[in-house]
Amino acid sequence: MEKKIRVAIVGYGNIGKYALQALQEAPDMEVAGIVRRQGATDCPQELMGYKVVKEEAIDQLGHVDVAILATPTRSVEEYAKRFLSKGINTVDSFDIHGQIVDLRRSLDQEAKAHGAVSIISAGWDPGSDSIVRTLMESLAPKGISYTNFGPGRSMGHSVCVRSKAGVRDALSMTIPVGQGIHRRMVYVELEEGADLQEVTAAIKADPYFASDETHVFQVESVDALNDVGHGVNLVRKGVSGQTHNQLFEFNMKINNPALTAQVLVNVARASMRQQPGCYTMIELPVIDMLPGQREDIIRHLV
Amino acid sequence: MEKKIRVAIVGYGNIGKYALQALQEAPDMEVAGIVRRQGATDCPQELMGYKVVKEEAIDQLGHVDVAILATPTRSVEEYAKRFLSKGINTVDSFDIHGQIVDLRRSLDQEAKAHGAVSIISAGWDPGSDSIVRTLMESLAPKGISYTNFGPGRSMGHSVCVRSKAGVRDALSMTIPVGQGIHRRMVYVELEEGADLQEVTAAIKADPYFASDETHVFQVESVDALNDVGHGVNLVRKGVSGQTHNQLFEFNMKINNPALTAQVLVNVARASMRQQPGCYTMIELPVIDMLPGQREDIIRHLV
Repeated sequence: MEKKIRVAIVGYGNIGKYALQALQEAPDMEVAGIVRRQGATDCPQELMGYKVVKEEAIDQLGHVDVAILATPTRSVEEYAKRFLSKGINTVDSFDIHGQIVDLRRSLDQEAKAHGAVSIISAGWDPGSDSIVRTLMESLAPKGISYTNFGPGRSMGHSVCVRSKAGVRDALSMTIPVGQGIHRRMVYVELEEGADLQEVTAAIKADPYFASDETHVFQVESVDALNDVGHGVNLVRKGVSGQTHNQLFEFNMKINNPALTAQVLVNVARASMRQQPGCYTMIELPVIDMLPGQREDIIRHLV
Repeated sequence: MEKKIRVAIVGYGNIGKYALQALQEAPDMEVAGIVRRQGATDCPQELMGYKVVKEEAIDQLGHVDVAILATPTRSVEEYAKRFLSKGINTVDSFDIHGQIVDLRRSLDQEAKAHGAVSIISAGWDPGSDSIVRTLMESLAPKGISYTNFGPGRSMGHSVCVRSKAGVRDALSMTIPVGQGIHRRMVYVELEEGADLQEVTAAIKADPYFASDETHVFQVESVDALNDVGHGVNLVRKGVSGQTHNQLFEFNMKINNPALTAQVLVNVARASMRQQPGCYTMIELPVIDMLPGQREDIIRHLV
């Protein structure tokens, strides 16, 4: 039997929890441990039986092949560099589209310097959707693609609404209306004395919402609306060679953090099969994301 | 500007014609020439201006980077070996699912011996669908996938019907009825004196049709039904980590030979970016199928 890939989970929030579940189901992996800012203090029940340490104490986890960075996007680069410098592969779901190329350059250097592999922006968008978008563009090089998100929560938009004066808690749902256009359904819990009209005006004026159709509703409890389901509809109509009207579509309806975590586990595996450097998911052969022998996978899936 | 990839088309039937169109649209490629059994004899109009030669005279095409094998599936191995032995990369759309692993082993040896690359089974199924199937399986490792084909012509089934006594020409349409089950709609042009009931019985008894719901219709002209449109619906419902009911779907409605030819051109490009050896499409990074600079593609599609 092949040696199992030893994986550390860095950060134990929503994604970290689902990553642990996905690792428990992966036949070729084992959990080296969990790295948390609090270490073993206030350790959740399900981590009993696992080593839980602060980053300073990561040597206590023994050999680690890959670190799954289940940290906020903005701290990914910093964490990745520290792990790569120890020769540990890293994977993340960095999701600021405009900064991916810069992050890739920066981590590519660090990874190569230490003989390690880093796979970035590995979630579902950016991530698995990126593979589908690239494949569709290859199948019809001329044409138009649309990525339609939802229905599902937008973290960025929700955080934006929460920052407005008078808002105690908020949830912004993304609703696809087609052609990459989205409607925003915003649910707010207001502080005592706050005025819904004023809050609504502030939200609609924000650049996050200004160009989208936006509706704001006051609710008693934002928590009561909590659902991590999400979806996507990716379409392309274009030209293969000189033949027009080629139609392609990809749909999914998924639990958002569960899928993100599964992708992170998949690319953790794939990281063991790449040359040193930094990669986005469209630079990986999809076969590298599956466990098992190459010929068996080809027999089963090609 | 980078040097263009010089591509020869081997075989000038349906796929070869569409491959020429796709090459004409590819910004990074040029047509080295067309290899036909008849050479330049009875050369179609659209080949004026191109070098058209028999295989023996392939040296007249000058340097060739990649040969697109637009030949019948059963002769792919033989052709591929001859071109690989000259150090020319080959791409094909070999479509006998059960023999792909064997072909890959055989061509891998030949390719490595001559420092060349061979990419096999590169059409839409096997081919681009294989990438989607593999991606879906990675996103939900436990679960069931179904590949639903059509509506569209099945070449294999049509050939089978044509072999029956009393059949002058035939067309078998594949109709998806869900869960990977297909209905067969068979249109036959009968020879003088042939009996529709007897022909129908012979078709339904054939192993090609015996397990599917099959309907046979007599028509005046099979040619009048000629349409190369086809489609696929790939679905998977499964488990990401420990989270059930994750739903994925891929659909396309396409001109069949135009898409096959586009895929062949894409993998011809990708062949220039791989180490010597033989690959199926799930072993290629999807980014390698697109023209252009890596960082530009990442910026645009990730």
